[in-house]
Amino acid sequence: MMGYYAKPLEDLISQLTRLPGVGAKTARKLAFFILSMNEGAVEDFAGTIVEAKKKMKYCSVCGNFTDGEVCSICASDDRDRTTVCVVESPADVVLMERMQEYHGLYHVLHGVISPMEGVGPDEINLKSLIVRLRDNDVNEVILATNPNVEGEATAMYIAKLVKPSGIKVTRIAHGVPIGGEIEDADEVTLLKALEGRREVD
Amino acid sequence: MMGYYAKPLEDLISQLTRLPGVGAKTARKLAFFILSMNEGAVEDFAGTIVEAKKKMKYCSVCGNFTDGEVCSICASDDRDRTTVCVVESPADVVLMERMQEYHGLYHVLHGVISPMEGVGPDEINLKSLIVRLRDNDVNEVILATNPNVEGEATAMYIAKLVKPSGIKVTRIAHGVPIGGEIEDADEVTLLKALEGRREVD
Repeated sequence: MMGYYAKPLEDLISQLTRLPGVGAKTARKLAFFILSMNEGAVEDFAGTIVEAKKKMKYCSVCGNFTDGEVCSICASDDRDRTTVCVVESPADVVLMERMQEYHGLYHVLHGVISPMEGVGPDEINLKSLIVRLRDNDVNEVILATNPNVEGEATAMYIAKLVKPSGIKVTRIAHGVPIGGEIEDADEVTLLKALEGRREVD
Repeated sequence: MMGYYAKPLEDLISQLTRLPGVGAKTARKLAFFILSMNEGAVEDFAGTIVEAKKKMKYCSVCGNFTDGEVCSICASDDRDRTTVCVVESPADVVLMERMQEYHGLYHVLHGVISPMEGVGPDEINLKSLIVRLRDNDVNEVILATNPNVEGEATAMYIAKLVKPSGIKVTRIAHGVPIGGEIEDADEVTLLKALEGRREVD
């Protein structure tokens, strides 16, 4: 297929292929779709991309995306300021917010500690968490990093860092997902589910 | 979630949702990825989109995408100019070319006749096919529209239009896909496979 597409189309496909989850076939489909849009719509589309990148920054308090200095959650009077939930990415904040059950604050790490990939504690948004805890009324830090090796290690690292301050540190529960079948759970999940068992009342 | 995202991010997600096959979840993932790119890369990305739309046009002969006046296939001396394969979209040309078995020319309809959606013969790139056949050495028109109701109807319409000129009109075969299981084929496909059976030699 090399050289089959004219250069501008080839460039577009190659740019689209860099997006996560977009393979050669999807990139082609998206490229053809974009070319089928009218020129004004394409310019709007491209403009929105540049605009979003220019205007969106990280909240100076929690690290979540915001178009201001402080994000809407950190700025809100309706949130419980005694609890901070630590997550890996802004996408995790969205998942938590969707539940509509958590009313505390967040802290977005923008990554996890991963010695394998050369990411140490200083390469993620962690120092600002410690500073933040020092001056505030936080009495619980919930560690909601992912349930994988890096996520666990990062959670343990933060726990060790925070505990001496006397603030309660909790980790989200691991277990069999609701709606799933025990049969489908892997051994580690099942072990975690057993360890985390609670008395039925 | 309404109002949770800052406006520039919300706009970006809503633009991305308009792409084919991109739901709310994928749009969010793509938006967060774009925001994680550095500003120069985002500008390149947006620039490539606008550039592609500006430079890519339809080939004045076959209707396929090109950045010139005539596409590389129509302009090539290596193609068999006696055969024209009629397809619905530029993406279909890519699929055909990938096979590396077809060496004729194409004609891209940019749609199908669909009375249900108010698309008549004049709304697709069909008139130019007839004009094209009049003045050229084409002796076979292969109808490679999709094997669905609209694709079949469009193929039949074009067949009726072309046949009086004495040019041979063929339709691609329908049948059981290679690598699939007969068990998985639907009844209509199986019927077509039976009807199209050929003697084994």
